Amino acid sequence: MFVTFLTDFGLEDDFVGTCHGVIKRIAPEIEIIDITHGIQPQGVLQGSLVLANTLPYLPEGVHLAVVDPGVGTERRALALRSGDGRLFVGPDNGLLIPAAEKLGGIEAAYEVTNRKYALEPVSATFHGRDIFSPAAAHLATGVAIEKLGPSIEPASLSRLDVPQAESGEKRIRACCLYVDRFGNMQLNLTREHLQRLAIEPGVQVELELGSERYYAIAARTFADVRRGEIILYEDAYENIGIAISGGSAADTFLARPGVDVRIRVAD
Amino acid sequence: MFVTFLTDFGLEDDFVGTCHGVIKRIAPEIEIIDITHGIQPQGVLQGSLVLANTLPYLPEGVHLAVVDPGVGTERRALALRSGDGRLFVGPDNGLLIPAAEKLGGIEAAYEVTNRKYALEPVSATFHGRDIFSPAAAHLATGVAIEKLGPSIEPASLSRLDVPQAESGEKRIRACCLYVDRFGNMQLNLTREHLQRLAIEPGVQVELELGSERYYAIAARTFADVRRGEIILYEDAYENIGIAISGGSAADTFLARPGVDVRIRVAD
Amino acid sequence: MFVTFLTDFGLEDDFVGTCHGVIKRIAPEIEIIDITHGIQPQGVLQGSLVLANTLPYLPEGVHLAVVDPGVGTERRALALRSGDGRLFVGPDNGLLIPAAEKLGGIEAAYEVTNRKYALEPVSATFHGRDIFSPAAAHLATGVAIEKLGPSIEPASLSRLDVPQAESGEKRIRACCLYVDRFGNMQLNLTREHLQRLAIEPGVQVELELGSERYYAIAARTFADVRRGEIILYEDAYENIGIAISGGSAADTFLARPGVDVRIRVAD
Repeated sequence: MFVTFLTDFGLEDDFVGTCHGVIKRIAPEIEIIDITHGIQPQGVLQGSLVLANTLPYLPEGVHLAVVDPGVGTERRALALRSGDGRLFVGPDNGLLIPAAEKLGGIEAAYEVTNRKYALEPVSATFHGRDIFSPAAAHLATGVAIEKLGPSIEPASLSRLDVPQAESGEKRIRACCLYVDRFGNMQLNLTREHLQRLAIEPGVQVELELGSERYYAIAARTFADVRRGEIILYEDAYENIGIAISGGSAADTFLARPGVDVRIRVAD
Repeated sequence: MFVTFLTDFGLEDDFVGTCHGVIKRIAPEIEIIDITHGIQPQGVLQGSLVLANTLPYLPEGVHLAVVDPGVGTERRALALRSGDGRLFVGPDNGLLIPAAEKLGGIEAAYEVTNRKYALEPVSATFHGRDIFSPAAAHLATGVAIEKLGPSIEPASLSRLDVPQAESGEKRIRACCLYVDRFGNMQLNLTREHLQRLAIEPGVQVELELGSERYYAIAARTFADVRRGEIILYEDAYENIGIAISGGSAADTFLARPGVDVRIRVAD
Repeated sequence: MFVTFLTDFGLEDDFVGTCHGVIKRIAPEIEIIDITHGIQPQGVLQGSLVLANTLPYLPEGVHLAVVDPGVGTERRALALRSGDGRLFVGPDNGLLIPAAEKLGGIEAAYEVTNRKYALEPVSATFHGRDIFSPAAAHLATGVAIEKLGPSIEPASLSRLDVPQAESGEKRIRACCLYVDRFGNMQLNLTREHLQRLAIEPGVQVELELGSERYYAIAARTFADVRRGEIILYEDAYENIGIAISGGSAADTFLARPGVDVRIRVAD
């Protein structure tokens, strides 16, 4: 049995290691797979997108995710079961929803309130350690999800506003959702957005970021263009992204999540 | 059986991976839990505090810790057994002491000298790989601690000076011990220090850092104040800390470990 | 059975976690040891050196390495078997060669083309996930290496130009290959280079970096000199390096991989 684990805890501190310890004390035989702990601090939207992108590649099990700016408030702790039988544990702030919906939909939701499956005393600031990790570990050992707390209405769950692109006849107004280590920028676009403007590999496009304009080429991959050229491409998770062959798009454009990107077919 | 592992090696280089390899070659069935490898380079005090904070949450086993600015000097390599039966391996520079004392006290101490349980040749600069990891792995497979080398007097072990807070009738002079990824500052204070000045949740305090003064509020958690407000709170390891709701205290105050913090009840 | 794993993926993104997931879905019983994922982005030479340095300390198994600036080009995907029976998987860009040659030489080489052992559809930009991780996982479960694709001539494999030092009678012109977390600089030199100039522990040398000159002392380890002194030493992987006792050589010299270093015996 696997517990997958995604957070914004980083690896400089002990937070991740401590949660591993908590899980292993409860469930020594369980294997933990760290998806990433590099979600930007309090980046709930980013965390939710990465979780939904990656879970299809991970073994089924209990999917623990903690990006939790609301720790200590009234926000609920959740355990979900999705249509294809996966279990999710995390805060009720939208983090788990896109992944659960992608993997069969939310079949049942529970509020994690049963202190029998928590560490006592529960601290005010580290529910990852005291509530979420123990709940995930107990689920992984076979505790029924219903035992964690009362059933709640899926319709009552908090959801995120994912910024939507605006598609005109000649332009798309998109937004950068994520920048990776290589400086590649993930946009809130899929292949369909580009197809509506007949942008396909080989077509030259104009990108507008802030007050600057750049020419880019729609391409299948970095290798299809010369070093230093900008490409608009479908990334490995089927999102549209911007990259520079042999370079960093994010550094060149000083781009961060949230930045507007306008795209049109070049004249 | 578990080996827990804490260092200042970082994860950019191969040091941690190589030690994992060394342990696994000796003890393939042993599971390693990485507490953190993000201790600041040569931060023995920080490492000792993190180890003592976190071990109660980790499974019992062999606790390997390497923050070792004295590698290559005459400093001894240690194996300790604490009162509750846990085993510790690391350098004789104080790193292991606070954790061992918290977990039953130091019951027995040995100098790791037996080259049968080291990698030969032992390098001059990487005892984590050549001495400490092999010793921990052999202990985890059941080698008796006495076999690693001669017994030594616990009283002869090197100890750290943990900076002590000065508590007056109206003021506390404290010090920042640690800054985490979220910019939260851990001070060398516990709840008792605040209680002596009748500082409890809801009380407004004045913080002095360098030549700057700030108002803060004693609070249970971030969620008890408005975004942007400064709080003085008990963190999840029962240390007193300073945080900014929705922000980074360390960035705002340009604070690092070692910085002085004066606290008094506001007028 | 072990899969060791080295990349330039970093740990901020999900790339490493996703590859772990892919391996575990195929081979749930296999244990993965992460050597490092901190190779500088697209640093094929650095990756190849770290792999060759570290593998002797790691358990035998399948050695998966991905530093792959040529993803999406015609560069081949490789599986190798070395003379001592280890298996390697990675791109055909030289990354695997120094390690395989150190561990018994390249006994057989195969191009990984069999889509039965890949994830379909294979993306254009993430062969770590879609080709290399699945191939390594299948090898680890016992699939014969011949099944991955056609045999190829070892002589046809891409190789790296490792920058060679120039040794004169009085001077060595070397190059920085790697800088670690502690700021220690690894040079493209071994003990033999120094011996030719009769540089042995205790000898004072002059270092020239750019237009600056520094005095350093050949030493066995940091502890042999005073805090702040520069040493030329043999590191734990038997490479010659430059370090500053209690400090960071790379920060002091603003040194990065590729920087020239001239060394001569001081007058």
